[in-house]
Amino acid sequence: MDRLLRRCRIKSSLARECLAEFFGVYVLILFGCGSVAQVTTSQNTKGDYLSINLGFALGTTFGIYIAKGVSGAHLNPAVSLSLCVLGRFSWTRLPFYVCSQLLGAFLAAATVALQYYDAIMDYTGGHLTVSGATATAGIFSTYPADYLSLWGGVVDQIIGTAALLACVLALGDPHNTPAPPGLEPVLVGAVVLVIGISMGSNSGYAINPARDFGPRLFSYIAGWGDEVFRAGHGWWWVPLIVTCVGALLGSLLYELLIGVHHPDSKPMDPEGPTAMVQKTVELEGVYPEMGKDRIFSITSADIN
Amino acid sequence: MDRLLRRCRIKSSLARECLAEFFGVYVLILFGCGSVAQVTTSQNTKGDYLSINLGFALGTTFGIYIAKGVSGAHLNPAVSLSLCVLGRFSWTRLPFYVCSQLLGAFLAAATVALQYYDAIMDYTGGHLTVSGATATAGIFSTYPADYLSLWGGVVDQIIGTAALLACVLALGDPHNTPAPPGLEPVLVGAVVLVIGISMGSNSGYAINPARDFGPRLFSYIAGWGDEVFRAGHGWWWVPLIVTCVGALLGSLLYELLIGVHHPDSKPMDPEGPTAMVQKTVELEGVYPEMGKDRIFSITSADIN
Amino acid sequence: MDRLLRRCRIKSSLARECLAEFFGVYVLILFGCGSVAQVTTSQNTKGDYLSINLGFALGTTFGIYIAKGVSGAHLNPAVSLSLCVLGRFSWTRLPFYVCSQLLGAFLAAATVALQYYDAIMDYTGGHLTVSGATATAGIFSTYPADYLSLWGGVVDQIIGTAALLACVLALGDPHNTPAPPGLEPVLVGAVVLVIGISMGSNSGYAINPARDFGPRLFSYIAGWGDEVFRAGHGWWWVPLIVTCVGALLGSLLYELLIGVHHPDSKPMDPEGPTAMVQKTVELEGVYPEMGKDRIFSITSADIN
Amino acid sequence: MDRLLRRCRIKSSLARECLAEFFGVYVLILFGCGSVAQVTTSQNTKGDYLSINLGFALGTTFGIYIAKGVSGAHLNPAVSLSLCVLGRFSWTRLPFYVCSQLLGAFLAAATVALQYYDAIMDYTGGHLTVSGATATAGIFSTYPADYLSLWGGVVDQIIGTAALLACVLALGDPHNTPAPPGLEPVLVGAVVLVIGISMGSNSGYAINPARDFGPRLFSYIAGWGDEVFRAGHGWWWVPLIVTCVGALLGSLLYELLIGVHHPDSKPMDPEGPTAMVQKTVELEGVYPEMGKDRIFSITSADIN
Repeated sequence: MDRLLRRCRIKSSLARECLAEFFGVYVLILFGCGSVAQVTTSQNTKGDYLSINLGFALGTTFGIYIAKGVSGAHLNPAVSLSLCVLGRFSWTRLPFYVCSQLLGAFLAAATVALQYYDAIMDYTGGHLTVSGATATAGIFSTYPADYLSLWGGVVDQIIGTAALLACVLALGDPHNTPAPPGLEPVLVGAVVLVIGISMGSNSGYAINPARDFGPRLFSYIAGWGDEVFRAGHGWWWVPLIVTCVGALLGSLLYELLIGVHHPDSKPMDPEGPTAMVQKTVELEGVYPEMGKDRIFSITSADIN
Repeated sequence: MDRLLRRCRIKSSLARECLAEFFGVYVLILFGCGSVAQVTTSQNTKGDYLSINLGFALGTTFGIYIAKGVSGAHLNPAVSLSLCVLGRFSWTRLPFYVCSQLLGAFLAAATVALQYYDAIMDYTGGHLTVSGATATAGIFSTYPADYLSLWGGVVDQIIGTAALLACVLALGDPHNTPAPPGLEPVLVGAVVLVIGISMGSNSGYAINPARDFGPRLFSYIAGWGDEVFRAGHGWWWVPLIVTCVGALLGSLLYELLIGVHHPDSKPMDPEGPTAMVQKTVELEGVYPEMGKDRIFSITSADIN
Repeated sequence: MDRLLRRCRIKSSLARECLAEFFGVYVLILFGCGSVAQVTTSQNTKGDYLSINLGFALGTTFGIYIAKGVSGAHLNPAVSLSLCVLGRFSWTRLPFYVCSQLLGAFLAAATVALQYYDAIMDYTGGHLTVSGATATAGIFSTYPADYLSLWGGVVDQIIGTAALLACVLALGDPHNTPAPPGLEPVLVGAVVLVIGISMGSNSGYAINPARDFGPRLFSYIAGWGDEVFRAGHGWWWVPLIVTCVGALLGSLLYELLIGVHHPDSKPMDPEGPTAMVQKTVELEGVYPEMGKDRIFSITSADIN
Repeated sequence: MDRLLRRCRIKSSLARECLAEFFGVYVLILFGCGSVAQVTTSQNTKGDYLSINLGFALGTTFGIYIAKGVSGAHLNPAVSLSLCVLGRFSWTRLPFYVCSQLLGAFLAAATVALQYYDAIMDYTGGHLTVSGATATAGIFSTYPADYLSLWGGVVDQIIGTAALLACVLALGDPHNTPAPPGLEPVLVGAVVLVIGISMGSNSGYAINPARDFGPRLFSYIAGWGDEVFRAGHGWWWVPLIVTCVGALLGSLLYELLIGVHHPDSKPMDPEGPTAMVQKTVELEGVYPEMGKDRIFSITSADIN
């Protein structure tokens, strides 16, 4: 078995990272959209809004555990883009990451539809609709509340994604109080949880272009029709574009208010920097593939 | 006291491991099925679907804490089988582990029935039924929703168990982002939690042959009768057999998409591998019984 | 300020430990019974059964954080007694610990009554009753469900307290998979959470004589009258006595099934035991007061 | 980008700390008040009382992650004041911290109002009221329950804030069982969670003058009018003043019952203190800016 598997080994670093991003987003959406499907088709008897929040939070956590050691686990085009702008990720890899993330989200939506096929058919009587009493398009992608204006939705997604990035950058900042090694995925999941709890009711907290657009594309093809693009006065582009603006804003805010002011690492104690370098080396020894393109790595830019 | 206890010491490594698997699954089912009993007999006043999810999740967590240092805490025949196929567990130990797991689940179901005897009698009026308004067979094992086709149930259990194995293998992969030492049980419990939250409504997320078949056998003997095997068009074999297929699929997916592509451990930094070996050695020093048959151990196959 | 405080320093180790047990149980009950008071007087609008479970779980967690470094944080006479029987705690300290625990629980119940005085008066109209529509005695101590027989209650408390001790001993067993240093309080809190989720509906999971008897005594004095001792066919002695039997049973079960079979610490790797001793020494250095009477300490008996 | 950001670097240590306190409280209130807005405007369909508790708890957690490495993350004037009285924070910095905290809370309340503008307008029909069926002032600051007397409210806030400080001091006490490095923010968040679960129904657990007064000021200006100061018989000063009294009481209680009795660090093992000092040195090396004014730092006063 071991030998058979070894024959499938891919040596291209980029291909491995794309596979990891693909599988990480796949798991994120499988658990996230799965929890919406469970709550929707069971008519709130087997879960409520908090289970949906937990589904996306823990989906994020385990998506990161699956991908982090290989690709850094961005799992979100808006995150990849922000890291590019901050100079912590290479622009040339960006399109490959984004495509892998979108593909993972698309296929995970298909898997959820397969797993809940009987349930959706039973609940809807076969009528796949975007709105109405037995609407099920919300299993896959986000739609705004009736009261939400377009401008209100734009503000909502900017604030939500900015909050995500500010918290994630804090968790990975070695000069601040970084998350303990090995628990970053849990804490990033907790960020997604609290965003769902405090910013979910306006428009379903997409805060991730791949999470929203991949499943939306699937629902368009799978029978929900072009209403998935027309609903909410053409809401679909907001989670796709505005989240990127929000992510950049959140990154800038964290850097301008906290990150950029860290003093140069010349502490009074002479043993300090050595200990720090040693720690870095040791970590790189244990996880040898750790590179520059990680959210959580200690890059030279961070140290200077 | 200490001396008295010491006389009971068993030196056979296999016997110790079987005791650990037995006690681990016992605790898993005691808390898991106990939470279903509480929700069912209190008619949702002392818990809801989320408490059942938490009961099985934390039951898994503490079952693992009880068994992991001795047997590796598979607690699931489908996990043991997958590790055999991956070459990380010995085929000769497989039947012993599986029997211990089944026995633990059976006796735990009996304990739950004992603890909730008065409650079940009061709730059912003494009529132990598999379906109907006061059905209580669901305390012990899983039954499909009315709408679920057999094929739908098969797909459901394959996806659920595959998700379990993919996440557990990621948490234990030393080349990825492994769970922090001592917190693996909590994170595996969280995997069970999110599966219950996102894949629980179709058929009750058995995802473990022992968890389902042991208690089902108990309920058959204890008065619920052969309806426990006939219900759901003979559902009982799906959680018994299909979960094994799903576990293998999930293991293969993780290995093919992530695990097999890890490069050989020859990092650029020359101190890397040494640090890694030292860490292994140290861990083995502290927990001296750590062997090859663990999900979370750093085996030579992983290092090569 | 610092100087003023220093004048109050007590040097007696026993007195310090009693203060810690007192304050630890005080915090446990303050949060635990407080959450029941909140759910009861708000008529389930500001919490439900899960909040009560979380209140006692996190109360346990922070009670342990407050006491563990000083007294080992038993916080439960049944735990202290079991550790005596296992030879890990001194019999002479037992009565001092138990009295401190009871006093802490009594005063915390008084504090909860003070904090919720207006709410209880508003909810009950001033009628402090043990049963009926606006019964409030359940804020302080446990009462059995109407259906529960005395024998059923005895079984319930034996199983619950046995589960508590088995899990806590596993979390502190250095030869198994011990909880990570500094997270034991969180994990013991999680044990209390899952017991509340899976064994709470029969009789309110006292599983701790001090948690039940201290507040019961307070409610007797504070106006609920002798009904607190007569209710449930004289239920009061079950959480007081039977929990001790359950704790001993759980301890024995863990030791007989897992603990006693750990092989002598003579691992193949020669550096192993040294590393272990070093770790112990280092821990004792950092927390210099660490003694033999801790649940989580590495005692010589454990190492042999 | 990196260069542009570097030009904005502020070298004043006090200014950096004020920015961190500002941004930390901003995040706390953004998530905390955001979760109240979600529950209120969705009329409990997208969250319940537990989500509000989780919103403030996780808001605290991520507020601390954002600020802790720079300012120590007090995020609460009552905490800053208590640390001053205990001699662990400088009185001269106190007013700067308090103003930054208030400003952060004020602007976060404005952000919540912006994000939920459409929702609040839809829910209230444009009538911004402090009481009544569609009252929304509770999104921003706390108001007492109808039954609560002023004296009852004072007791409530004293007990709540005292509990907060006692637990936080325990989590940061290096002679007790301190929280694991990097997880302090999670555990302080859990303290806020359990206070909300067990002490939230009387008056909404402000336990933080900035959390209450900053948003109250915003709601006064933004259209809720002077009713926000008149409601509850002039409740507004209780969370502002009484929380400081409670914080001092809790600090004193912890020090008198636990902290002050820790023996001098002269353990029997001669390597002990050295190891401790080494640990301190190492920590200071990794986080070079760690100073005397942290809750969680090992100060010389603690060691003596």
